[in-house]
Amino acid sequence: MSATRPTLEDVATAAMVSRATAARALGGYGYVKPSTRSAVREAADRIGYRPNNIARSMVTGRTQTIGFISADMENPFFARTMAGLTDVVRTSGYEVVIANCQEDPELERNAVRVLQERQVDGLIVAPTQYSNGSHLRRVTERGIPVVLLDRSVRGVIADSVLIDNVSAARSATERLIKLGHTRIGIIISDLGGDPLERLNQTALDPTHSSTGAARGVGYLAALHDAGLPVDADLVQSVTYSREGAAGAARALLRLRDRATAMLTVDNVLTLGAFEAVQESGLDFPGEVSLLGFDDLEWTTIVRPTLSVIAQPAYDIGATAARRLLARLDGEDSPAQVLFLHTSLIERQSTAAPRGGHDSDRRDGTERKQ
Amino acid sequence: MSATRPTLEDVATAAMVSRATAARALGGYGYVKPSTRSAVREAADRIGYRPNNIARSMVTGRTQTIGFISADMENPFFARTMAGLTDVVRTSGYEVVIANCQEDPELERNAVRVLQERQVDGLIVAPTQYSNGSHLRRVTERGIPVVLLDRSVRGVIADSVLIDNVSAARSATERLIKLGHTRIGIIISDLGGDPLERLNQTALDPTHSSTGAARGVGYLAALHDAGLPVDADLVQSVTYSREGAAGAARALLRLRDRATAMLTVDNVLTLGAFEAVQESGLDFPGEVSLLGFDDLEWTTIVRPTLSVIAQPAYDIGATAARRLLARLDGEDSPAQVLFLHTSLIERQSTAAPRGGHDSDRRDGTERKQ
Repeated sequence: MSATRPTLEDVATAAMVSRATAARALGGYGYVKPSTRSAVREAADRIGYRPNNIARSMVTGRTQTIGFISADMENPFFARTMAGLTDVVRTSGYEVVIANCQEDPELERNAVRVLQERQVDGLIVAPTQYSNGSHLRRVTERGIPVVLLDRSVRGVIADSVLIDNVSAARSATERLIKLGHTRIGIIISDLGGDPLERLNQTALDPTHSSTGAARGVGYLAALHDAGLPVDADLVQSVTYSREGAAGAARALLRLRDRATAMLTVDNVLTLGAFEAVQESGLDFPGEVSLLGFDDLEWTTIVRPTLSVIAQPAYDIGATAARRLLARLDGEDSPAQVLFLHTSLIERQSTAAPRGGHDSDRRDGTERKQ
Repeated sequence: MSATRPTLEDVATAAMVSRATAARALGGYGYVKPSTRSAVREAADRIGYRPNNIARSMVTGRTQTIGFISADMENPFFARTMAGLTDVVRTSGYEVVIANCQEDPELERNAVRVLQERQVDGLIVAPTQYSNGSHLRRVTERGIPVVLLDRSVRGVIADSVLIDNVSAARSATERLIKLGHTRIGIIISDLGGDPLERLNQTALDPTHSSTGAARGVGYLAALHDAGLPVDADLVQSVTYSREGAAGAARALLRLRDRATAMLTVDNVLTLGAFEAVQESGLDFPGEVSLLGFDDLEWTTIVRPTLSVIAQPAYDIGATAARRLLARLDGEDSPAQVLFLHTSLIERQSTAAPRGGHDSDRRDGTERKQ
């Protein structure tokens, strides 16, 4: 292959321009007429010219690559952030190297090590839920820019593109309370230990926690503001899966004083809760309301259509990419934490609880609204 | 940074092993006790050792990177193939560089050029629908291994991991015919020109066409086998979008002799068709059946639950990765085209047409089944 490898001169000859013009057109620097640029690129393509990037990296010490470590590539939320990210990076001269973690902190740790070995110029990380972060701190300490996406990590001072999870869940819970619900369940994954105790700890430091736990704090805050008691039975912590959430939803509906509304903190958990409510035989949303995170395509074709807190997933990815490119371009300001806006989209799955107080229902009386 | 850059010797000292052992443990070659390997890696991590991959690439001429060009990263089908692919590549010593094409052949062409410039060792490409392929052929001609995923491309001889689209759509259509349907619509995207004429052309060369067109050919074959007439009104070609598919489904239901069943060739098109049937006021599936491609999570929480042709998306990605790694490992056999199995999953959205023949319905008579 390399014996016949075309040179820059060959490209210039094929495109009938000077070597300097060919270099400018392919390098994307200096002025070249657009028609000349495309003629040169076409010629390069035709004769199979490839600039020697390895040699260039040897000289500049840069690889022009960005690492993207995704907590879970298949989760539609993260898939959409990746689309936003790659769309921004595409025109920058950088390429994106990816690693998928399947929510496993060990895989994340490993990916950070491998991508550093590959000498990426910067990293965008959507951390796994319980990332401990020491490996990320070491990266930033070496002067390699890191941007965190969706989740921040305790002890890691870096540009971060997040939503305000506490406030998003708080507004959602307030809305359910305003509809008349007093028995509101919440389904969160992997809180560990005593869920309620864990949320109370999280309240002291919500930004450096899992998004789910921070959303749980918003839920507690709304109950507190409304003067509603907090019932540990209504706070369900499950293994992260659709099945886990279905089990939790069934448990919430089996309680003696059952939940009349549920909040799920993630689209995978929502699928399980939706399924469990459907199968419960209860009127949905007449007897049970459900409100989830993430405005995915399917939320409008299920019945009832799903009320959601919409996150700007594409923008989160695009903003993270713009942050990192600015750092790679030399921006040296203190770390910025950006909170993007969420919105509550009310569809059919949230309604006033039929019969008002649950104790009425157990007596067999139902108040029609 | 580079002034204090730790060396391999520093790692060996920190881990209290010889330099040779440290090199073996970090390079992943030769025998090293697992406990020693993890001790060395931990030490490397702790002191911030990064092997100089750029220098290594200079010597070997390989970058240990694989390019993955995805037709549409946000489509859940492709997101799942990417998960399969990265899971296989993770332990191979290669990294994956990605490019998203949003179904735009120009972006695909550009991505191929850029990734070649980056000297990827091999490429996995999920081609856009109307990729013309000359740029891919040039890559293979230079001896860079290419594996095609999901779609093959005319004129490109390369390992390909596909499903048999004709046969999958044929079985699906046969099933609808067996249920008693004679007016079966199909929704395909971007056929261009006269859809039926296009499908007839495709029939001569179905493997080298868009998956949608090949599925259309399977539909025609099933009608032909059953002796059913082909009605051009039942073959709807739309712009690739949910909205486009919704419009097509409405058109199928507005026909004088309307469709009693529909086949959609992609999960995005299915969303639109599902929505249109829901809103039509017709009994679903009593009066209209719907069968789609791709077994996504939401297909079991919609009502009726959706009957689908399930594609092994994760396996398609994993198999493509294994093919490419084998090529990079020196395998020199002729190109292999692998067809992975699909399965028809019947749920609630497909049923016998109520009233049998449509002409009865227009007379206001309904035959109960």
